[in-house]
Amino acid sequence: MYNEKMYGLGSKRSVIREIFEYAKVRGAQIGAENVFDFSIGNPSVPAPAIVNETIERLVKEIPAVELHGYTSAQGDKSVRDKIAANYTRRFGIKLSGDDLYMTVGAAASLTITMKAICNEGDEIIVFAPHFPEYSVFVANAGAKLVVLPSDDKMQPDFEALKKAINPRVRGLLINSPNNPSGVVYGEETIRKLTDILREKSKEFGEPIYLVSDEPYRELVYDADTVVPCVMAYYDNSIVCYSYSKSLSIPGERIGYIAVNPSATDAKAIYAAVCGAGRSLGFVCAPGLFQRVAAECDGMTADLSIYKRNRDIFYKGLTDCGFTCVYPDGAFYLFMKSPEEDVTAFCERAKKYELLLVNGESFGAKGWVRIAYCLKTETIERALPLFKKLAQEYGLCK
Amino acid sequence: MYNEKMYGLGSKRSVIREIFEYAKVRGAQIGAENVFDFSIGNPSVPAPAIVNETIERLVKEIPAVELHGYTSAQGDKSVRDKIAANYTRRFGIKLSGDDLYMTVGAAASLTITMKAICNEGDEIIVFAPHFPEYSVFVANAGAKLVVLPSDDKMQPDFEALKKAINPRVRGLLINSPNNPSGVVYGEETIRKLTDILREKSKEFGEPIYLVSDEPYRELVYDADTVVPCVMAYYDNSIVCYSYSKSLSIPGERIGYIAVNPSATDAKAIYAAVCGAGRSLGFVCAPGLFQRVAAECDGMTADLSIYKRNRDIFYKGLTDCGFTCVYPDGAFYLFMKSPEEDVTAFCERAKKYELLLVNGESFGAKGWVRIAYCLKTETIERALPLFKKLAQEYGLCK
Repeated sequence: MYNEKMYGLGSKRSVIREIFEYAKVRGAQIGAENVFDFSIGNPSVPAPAIVNETIERLVKEIPAVELHGYTSAQGDKSVRDKIAANYTRRFGIKLSGDDLYMTVGAAASLTITMKAICNEGDEIIVFAPHFPEYSVFVANAGAKLVVLPSDDKMQPDFEALKKAINPRVRGLLINSPNNPSGVVYGEETIRKLTDILREKSKEFGEPIYLVSDEPYRELVYDADTVVPCVMAYYDNSIVCYSYSKSLSIPGERIGYIAVNPSATDAKAIYAAVCGAGRSLGFVCAPGLFQRVAAECDGMTADLSIYKRNRDIFYKGLTDCGFTCVYPDGAFYLFMKSPEEDVTAFCERAKKYELLLVNGESFGAKGWVRIAYCLKTETIERALPLFKKLAQEYGLCK
Repeated sequence: MYNEKMYGLGSKRSVIREIFEYAKVRGAQIGAENVFDFSIGNPSVPAPAIVNETIERLVKEIPAVELHGYTSAQGDKSVRDKIAANYTRRFGIKLSGDDLYMTVGAAASLTITMKAICNEGDEIIVFAPHFPEYSVFVANAGAKLVVLPSDDKMQPDFEALKKAINPRVRGLLINSPNNPSGVVYGEETIRKLTDILREKSKEFGEPIYLVSDEPYRELVYDADTVVPCVMAYYDNSIVCYSYSKSLSIPGERIGYIAVNPSATDAKAIYAAVCGAGRSLGFVCAPGLFQRVAAECDGMTADLSIYKRNRDIFYKGLTDCGFTCVYPDGAFYLFMKSPEEDVTAFCERAKKYELLLVNGESFGAKGWVRIAYCLKTETIERALPLFKKLAQEYGLCK
């Protein structure tokens, strides 16, 4: 006499959790430093100093009743105004604080948005590979996640999108920079996607939303990599943001939803966002960290460490003969399995104490995800083992 | 093309919000100090000093990657162990950290619990008067809130409970000390309620849960007022707690769910709680404040201010001839309207700049709620106005 679906969600161990538990056991046997767990996608770089400095300052400056008190459900007004002003300055979109809704992190941004825009039986489209929890968040809204293929460069299959859109499709969910592939959708991709959405919205007479999940927005490593601001390309767009990765504060649960003020019925969508937040039990985003986010918005942890890791790892793996998607951002490498049976490949890697995640968890067959938010030294020590693995497959000498 | 229900939840102003807006406008006309807004139930006493001291210490002591990092979904293990040990010491219930799930505050505790125990079409019983958002939280789980009457002392109508329980009833939700009445359910009440639940569970062959919403647990003011620990009286019980009121940190969103380890299928219920938290997008409760809660668990803000307010206000109002339920705890007074038309009574009170909340918002006809989490001086200045109001009804000379 409890909810069986919730029991299922709470009792099934994720693949990543399985690997984590295995790493613990194996580490106890051979020494934790000899087990290479590439499964965990947690920021490994500390929050920039300004985060703790801001906390200490706010605690001193703002009276406790105010600092730790309820903010309005959508978030403190001055916090929203400040973040919106930054958004306008950075991206040229005229956003106001009244278009922003502060959330308890990226997952909250997504569950709230889905509940706001979806009705029972609606469909949300995503391209593989994708963050596995999307299916959980979309299901919570009574909707269905439809997964479409990408090409080998992990760019969307546009023809598949055209075919998949029907009157039940309420939105396209994108995640760029992408977890798990690290790929960024450039301007051309965004243009093509939004052209299709516009065309199909017209065909079916109802807006199809572009929901852009952007926790990795700031995590890009090359001067010529630009993450386009979707609001500039498509009116019916909603941005789901989180400070978890940019500020390395994933445990503090702080992010926002920005509803494009140019969207059809923008004010009504915003009201539905407020209603969905209320329905799901969010009340308001954590007050102290709302203020920290406002003070630190646009800043980042030291991303040069991730860049160095990416450069060393990408070069090392491709030098061994492995095929990797070039990761523009985030902190993941998506690598092609050299044999069709990816489970067998992961098992073989395990012999070298290399723990990889089967890409099937992300809806992509034939690939593995390798997280590089680790000490650079760990990656350097792992590369010779990857080389031995590659040799087994005859990828290098 | 958005969710109309969510739009409704997000766009309809609550009665309390209406009063808040009115107070702002009226305050601008006659001076804010001359408007007596008794609608807002926010802690007015600052957090105890140890809250900010703990924040400052943790920021210095714990490396940022750990302090601001993800905890496990159910909460940091050492946090849960510490709070569980306190619970065992305070209430004699053998609780372990594995029975506790840290939440993003009371609303999250409730939405998660409801989603964990309810299936579509189930019923949850509550006695009036009750916190209005219960209907939203229960609806989110696909269940229906059934409201039963209380007597004039705001104790439950036991016969009504017996009649209302049918095989669709999944739980009884209680809130003691109560918002809005301030009343505590004593040991005898809890015994009678749990006897009925036990009897009916047996009759229908399935457990009926007792869900105890306890954000006001520590806010009681008389030496002989004891808030019974429901776990000691009933196995199939789940406690929803929040630190918002005890520590005066409502904006920080931190609380917990404790599943009675003696419950039938306790481990499965706990797993369903984990699954529901995941489904709703909670990921983990805010990390810094999980640790603050563990350090400050069992401590409180300076409650003597609320006690003083209650004593002065209750005496003052009853001296004027008003009938009030004696409030054992929380920071609300429930006062009988001297005329049947409560809206008319509230309007008449407004003439004296006294802003009261119609008890209908809480499912109780004929009453008003008066929040006394205010400066004592405000209450002292309001009492002569209440006297004039009472005189209009001939309640006093």
